[in-house]
Amino acid sequence: MTAATRVCVVGSGAIGSLFAAHLGRLPDVDVWAYDVSPAHVDRINADGLRITGAAEFRAEVHATTDPSRIPPCDLGIVAVKSAYTRAAIAATAPVFEDAAVASVQNGLGNEERIAEAVPRVIRGTTLAAGAITAPGVVRYDATGGTWFGPFEPKPARMGEVTLLADLLERGGMTAAGLPDARGAQWTKLLFNVGTNALGAVTGLPIGPIGTDPAVRGLASRLIEEGRRVAHALGITPDADPEAMIDDAVARAFGHRASMLQDVTAHRVTEVDVLNGGIVAAAREAGLHAPLNEAMVALVHGIEASWSLEHDGSHA
Amino acid sequence: MTAATRVCVVGSGAIGSLFAAHLGRLPDVDVWAYDVSPAHVDRINADGLRITGAAEFRAEVHATTDPSRIPPCDLGIVAVKSAYTRAAIAATAPVFEDAAVASVQNGLGNEERIAEAVPRVIRGTTLAAGAITAPGVVRYDATGGTWFGPFEPKPARMGEVTLLADLLERGGMTAAGLPDARGAQWTKLLFNVGTNALGAVTGLPIGPIGTDPAVRGLASRLIEEGRRVAHALGITPDADPEAMIDDAVARAFGHRASMLQDVTAHRVTEVDVLNGGIVAAAREAGLHAPLNEAMVALVHGIEASWSLEHDGSHA
Repeated sequence: MTAATRVCVVGSGAIGSLFAAHLGRLPDVDVWAYDVSPAHVDRINADGLRITGAAEFRAEVHATTDPSRIPPCDLGIVAVKSAYTRAAIAATAPVFEDAAVASVQNGLGNEERIAEAVPRVIRGTTLAAGAITAPGVVRYDATGGTWFGPFEPKPARMGEVTLLADLLERGGMTAAGLPDARGAQWTKLLFNVGTNALGAVTGLPIGPIGTDPAVRGLASRLIEEGRRVAHALGITPDADPEAMIDDAVARAFGHRASMLQDVTAHRVTEVDVLNGGIVAAAREAGLHAPLNEAMVALVHGIEASWSLEHDGSHA
Repeated sequence: MTAATRVCVVGSGAIGSLFAAHLGRLPDVDVWAYDVSPAHVDRINADGLRITGAAEFRAEVHATTDPSRIPPCDLGIVAVKSAYTRAAIAATAPVFEDAAVASVQNGLGNEERIAEAVPRVIRGTTLAAGAITAPGVVRYDATGGTWFGPFEPKPARMGEVTLLADLLERGGMTAAGLPDARGAQWTKLLFNVGTNALGAVTGLPIGPIGTDPAVRGLASRLIEEGRRVAHALGITPDADPEAMIDDAVARAFGHRASMLQDVTAHRVTEVDVLNGGIVAAAREAGLHAPLNEAMVALVHGIEASWSLEHDGSHA
């Protein structure tokens, strides 16, 4: 019998907890979860990590708020919101001194930040979705696939990529290792670029975004800017983001995008790695993405407005 | 002694009341105000129309909610929000059977609607601003100028244009009649196009809009799209809208744009005659204005969101 594979999930919010729990079902995997919430961590250590919704089970996971307590790992999965990538990977870097670390986060630029601190990086994208409903409990809402591939500038070995995908498949998720995961990453990116900031700015759920002609038209123009950038960089999305919008309208008309939920709660958004990711990639390709640049400015404007008093008394 | 000049102000909100009151100070002018607010109308008829702030006086004005009570007039001034132009001018058209009627409203397209119902039209733009503080009372906040000129497709006589400007000057406002008032109209339009919808979408007052590099950059790009359209149509703005933004930042840092006030109160906005006016004029000129088109879609999206429940329970 070989030694257990040790995996550390960095950030056990909804997404991170889904990955940790599915891996925690496997007897040959030792799963650690790093999170900043003592309530969530304590409940996971006391009762296990519980999944409800699309799957129902409880898994053994070691959770901690203190990265120094985590032993060296073979694999990592970073699942924090992009604003916290740099801080989270800096805190956990000693765990990954000889590891391959995957991002399953939204947008562009997270792998670059992870690569600043660990030896080998896996580019990852997931369509799985859920929500923490109580400490230690995650509702599994969407059982979409996950794709992994070597991060080109500091690549994981292909064996590490397929090992991670295989473990998740055995745990019950849908996951695949690919030589080039950029097409999968850009498919989800373009879907997000067309819908997420639009939801945040207008307050509309996915249904009206996808069906109001003017708003959907803007979504399509935002996606088209991104497609041109992808083409210039030699990246071919592996599915049609417009069809993903149609599908989301049909399946979840009233769903409010994560960025709209962030704006409603006055939390810093992920616009910099979504529409802002397109703007940066456009610059790299010698192109412009003026509509995506406008969405970044508008969402940052909304974020800035939270710190102001709105009584008009300075007028 | 000649007969009094009879003027009807259509819509006596803040702007309409400022015009009505200044004209009402002149013994040779008979002023009527049409408004839908019985409280405002009754107070004006009982006590006169009172101005506070930048000027302090009380003027005699005949106010009514019933257009059939208004005698035929020589001049008209339309001051309703642009969404109500068509309805208001339809209701008052019999008053203007042989009159020249001016718009002092925001944006593009109001004169076109007025011209559907009256014989002669005056293109107008005002920088005056104020607020109704109680029925019959208007606070005069900004004493900016007003410019009038014949509306080209259905022009008022130049004598009517200068008569209206001269009456307002004698009443105490700053007003001028011009052979071509499009330059003045586009100056204010471009200022509004750069700031008004940005305020509505972000929640930011004019100060941060004018000073945050990314938001100001977007303002400048919205204005630049409009400038290109003006140039293609042979219109030369008579002042620099960027300097107007700098001036507004310096004088009224905390001022919240009218469209932000509309959005906060869930009132239909004027985006269709502002950014939407640029989009329509661009089409006329064979150009595109994609950023202004995006702002129109976003503000309409915000308006549409008000009729939805935001509990996410459909998801």
